[in-house]
Amino acid sequence: MNPVRNLVYLLAYDGTDFNGWQTQPGYRTVQETLETATATMTGGTRVRLNASGRTDAGVHAVGQVANFLTTAPYPCDAFLRAVNTRLPADVVVHRVWEAALPFDANKDAKRKLYRYVIRNAPTADPFLRKYSHHVKKKLDAAAMHRAAQHLRGRHDFHSFETEWPNRLSSVRTITHIAVNRFGDYLWLDVEADGFLYNMVRAIAGTLIEVGRGQLTESQVGEILRAEDRSKAGDTAPAEGLFLIRVTYE
Amino acid sequence: MNPVRNLVYLLAYDGTDFNGWQTQPGYRTVQETLETATATMTGGTRVRLNASGRTDAGVHAVGQVANFLTTAPYPCDAFLRAVNTRLPADVVVHRVWEAALPFDANKDAKRKLYRYVIRNAPTADPFLRKYSHHVKKKLDAAAMHRAAQHLRGRHDFHSFETEWPNRLSSVRTITHIAVNRFGDYLWLDVEADGFLYNMVRAIAGTLIEVGRGQLTESQVGEILRAEDRSKAGDTAPAEGLFLIRVTYE
Repeated sequence: MNPVRNLVYLLAYDGTDFNGWQTQPGYRTVQETLETATATMTGGTRVRLNASGRTDAGVHAVGQVANFLTTAPYPCDAFLRAVNTRLPADVVVHRVWEAALPFDANKDAKRKLYRYVIRNAPTADPFLRKYSHHVKKKLDAAAMHRAAQHLRGRHDFHSFETEWPNRLSSVRTITHIAVNRFGDYLWLDVEADGFLYNMVRAIAGTLIEVGRGQLTESQVGEILRAEDRSKAGDTAPAEGLFLIRVTYE
Repeated sequence: MNPVRNLVYLLAYDGTDFNGWQTQPGYRTVQETLETATATMTGGTRVRLNASGRTDAGVHAVGQVANFLTTAPYPCDAFLRAVNTRLPADVVVHRVWEAALPFDANKDAKRKLYRYVIRNAPTADPFLRKYSHHVKKKLDAAAMHRAAQHLRGRHDFHSFETEWPNRLSSVRTITHIAVNRFGDYLWLDVEADGFLYNMVRAIAGTLIEVGRGQLTESQVGEILRAEDRSKAGDTAPAEGLFLIRVTYE
């Protein structure tokens, strides 16, 4: 018997045609797709991929991280080439490396950075229609950025969480939040030590209301303190959301 | 009867699911799709769209221009909104304006700029898999740029033309040609007064051979002077090619 190794994937996926990360019988998921491709290199032995966090149906990832235990003896670069030949075109493993056995891609993640992409122009963009949320009316990005700063720091984010209560605590720490305009596109970047269900999409929906002039900047702080989901804006659609980066110590 | 107007569309399309610009019975084409959507605003009267040039199956456009004659009386911005509600998500009209009656989007085009996008990294990119050509081996972009300069100016481009002879003359003038690297992507930009069938894709395929070290820079000049398609590189795949801009006087 070969020794057990802890292998790590850095991977990207176009979430459009996936029902999210987590395996669910009868659905096409990223986890199931990757585990099936990986099993062909481990003599058919099923591995269990442990991601930094689940992403929902339709959400994309540029830099997801997942680890798994295996006794397969192949070098990491052979794993990289082989797994990619066995994957469909909407998932790619960019790197494979070996970690110490205790490494856990989920529990050891210190911070995650999500980006929400808004197309803000009168007409749609046929190339980014699956990778951005289209808002026709001109948004005030500077006001959205200022309003977003109310959410920085350690807070109870009940107001920006779907299907609460779904965790023991809704307290999280946002270490960085910014809204920037690049021509016809707005990027909302949110980096935190953890995220609640639909948290970035609820923040995006709320900040879009600020950008439209339907909410004031200080109302965003009031919504946060209300700890009431009904006070915040809509959950913005999944296609604009990307998991960009996971940071470990 | 309303007076005849000459309306112009600035439009973009994701070429993936189209069999090119030009109407062909039994195929989904950009021209047919746009003419059908436009006819709903002209009382069902068919219009004929005249583009700056045809694009082939799978080729994308960011800034295609097409004009048509109509007696429909609506303002241009009403046309813009209405046509977009009638178009599928992979074609968008970005602007509509009225031109003088003699304006011809095809004959009056002075220059067209095409961009060929190459992903140059060991792994694919799931987001740009339909919008770039993937080359795993590291390409020498600087050598490709220098080699490309042999093609600048007025030349007979027989060597970079598929299904020759398909025109009265294969003489064209390339006013600008450049290869630039942006991280894992290379952009080959070619601006000319006109293009032969598959010309940019044949140039891209040839320059990729230079980038791999299979052809020297000066051999590109020899291939041009040979006026022989068999001397040049392969026709690179359609998915990397974009019509970026059409210039009129």
